[in-house]
Amino acid sequence: MQITSDNQSKDESEKLLFYLGLIGIAAFSITGVIAAGKKGMDIFSILLLGVVTALGGGTLRDVILDTSPVFWIADLTYLWVAIVAAAFAFFAARPISRVFPLFLYMDAFGLALFTILAAKKTLQLGFDTTTAIIMGVMTGVTGGMLRDTLTGRMPLLLGKEFYATPALLGAVIFTTLYHIFPLHKFNTFYGIGLILTLRILAIHWGLYYPKWLTYRGKD
Amino acid sequence: MQITSDNQSKDESEKLLFYLGLIGIAAFSITGVIAAGKKGMDIFSILLLGVVTALGGGTLRDVILDTSPVFWIADLTYLWVAIVAAAFAFFAARPISRVFPLFLYMDAFGLALFTILAAKKTLQLGFDTTTAIIMGVMTGVTGGMLRDTLTGRMPLLLGKEFYATPALLGAVIFTTLYHIFPLHKFNTFYGIGLILTLRILAIHWGLYYPKWLTYRGKD
Amino acid sequence: MQITSDNQSKDESEKLLFYLGLIGIAAFSITGVIAAGKKGMDIFSILLLGVVTALGGGTLRDVILDTSPVFWIADLTYLWVAIVAAAFAFFAARPISRVFPLFLYMDAFGLALFTILAAKKTLQLGFDTTTAIIMGVMTGVTGGMLRDTLTGRMPLLLGKEFYATPALLGAVIFTTLYHIFPLHKFNTFYGIGLILTLRILAIHWGLYYPKWLTYRGKD
Repeated sequence: MQITSDNQSKDESEKLLFYLGLIGIAAFSITGVIAAGKKGMDIFSILLLGVVTALGGGTLRDVILDTSPVFWIADLTYLWVAIVAAAFAFFAARPISRVFPLFLYMDAFGLALFTILAAKKTLQLGFDTTTAIIMGVMTGVTGGMLRDTLTGRMPLLLGKEFYATPALLGAVIFTTLYHIFPLHKFNTFYGIGLILTLRILAIHWGLYYPKWLTYRGKD
Repeated sequence: MQITSDNQSKDESEKLLFYLGLIGIAAFSITGVIAAGKKGMDIFSILLLGVVTALGGGTLRDVILDTSPVFWIADLTYLWVAIVAAAFAFFAARPISRVFPLFLYMDAFGLALFTILAAKKTLQLGFDTTTAIIMGVMTGVTGGMLRDTLTGRMPLLLGKEFYATPALLGAVIFTTLYHIFPLHKFNTFYGIGLILTLRILAIHWGLYYPKWLTYRGKD
Repeated sequence: MQITSDNQSKDESEKLLFYLGLIGIAAFSITGVIAAGKKGMDIFSILLLGVVTALGGGTLRDVILDTSPVFWIADLTYLWVAIVAAAFAFFAARPISRVFPLFLYMDAFGLALFTILAAKKTLQLGFDTTTAIIMGVMTGVTGGMLRDTLTGRMPLLLGKEFYATPALLGAVIFTTLYHIFPLHKFNTFYGIGLILTLRILAIHWGLYYPKWLTYRGKD
């Protein structure tokens, strides 16, 4: 299956999106290093953890949608950005991890970018809206899940605050706009902005569901 | 690679199988919610866990066999059934989890269905018997492994009672019948029945291997 | 995508490589059984763990590179070797696990074989050097990561001693030689030898990075 080439030439907003994607990769790679690093781990293992966190979600997306080759083989820029960002985080880990919410901000940024870019790619490959929304949310949360599962942390996804829900709402808004205004350049940015805003609100004001929509389970 | 279309028109037993498959999806989705739910998790995270448990095994199967698109993208019914079942489990979790063996029964039902349906799909794609048996067992146990790994539970697979073995025996019986009586309509049901029966016996009477076939390892 | 058939007929060194690959599969399968086995687990669950450890890395490689069918479906020899080796380990687990470094040696052997064979396959499929190096390291470390994650052990990858680094150096040496002397028969053996040597040195003399290249993180 081929990626439907955009008929529009890669205009300004496409370029901006490409660079934003790279920043998302870098952000996720850095969160991988900060979350996963344990005292005494060597630099190459650390780089691997950063790269897996940064590229894991998109790899799962491409494998499930059967787009071949996967994005980081098609364009090695993504891989190198993940490696360089992880190396930076390796040396700057102490100052970075002192600024606590920076980790959560970076995670939020990666979540927003990956969700919307995956939803967009899925639509451009000709799949329907529901599939695009699911692939968007799945891609957005997979990197963080991999990071947290490999290192035995409590996944942010399973926490009390809004995490997957902003991704869902962002994907819904983006796919809706995409169908109503297919030629509008900024649909992606509205989706990304919504996810980022909701997630930052969740981090700072503890945004969460009303009690009847949280699990009461086996007490 | 295309799915070899059955020459027989979708007759009664095929239809029954489709609906049984949906019930298997629903059952696994509900076990995902019951096993994974922790107090305070929000409804959307819970739905995600149910969906991953329900669709994970089949997704791995389709990715390894390189059938594109994966089953839940080809027919969104599976996805919706998983979502609705998880939502039901979210609200009914307390009464459900009070009926203890219900969880194990549902898991058994999903295991049986997924194993045989995966073995069948693999044979219909033209692969050999060994591959069909392996893909059957792998698909059957993957959903539960994902559920238990993501939530830090001891996987049922690694317990003392028969778990993977019923799936293996069921897959062997089914593939054997499939080769001897290729036109017989109920081969799948014999396989499913065998797995269910053995698993229910294991739950209630603690069916397990004789001592010399259990691991003694490093004591 | 088809595997570029070697123009050379399968000569002696190719055959040797095939058998070495099988030994690598067997070695990894045995480490899976030793690491994963818990007292009371039944023989079939044990076999499954061995098989997943032995075939997991190569499966991920083939899925990401989209070579279809995956290697153990294309040639069932790999699967049977993994099963037989796991069965052997099941019955011989006590004497084996008493010889402590045997586990680490076998892991090292699998790591070396899988890394170089994956790098070679990637190059033969027409991908570039960077992709080949990454796929090599990823394939080499995935089996062990799966084994250790599924059974809650501290992954060897995350330890202090050289683990991923020998795989990286071996892959770099091999791909470099492959480009300079494409017709030379023993490039693979130099790569495999380098990884094995470094890893054995790491096991016995605790080879690791200087302090400034190990993580100091959040303490």
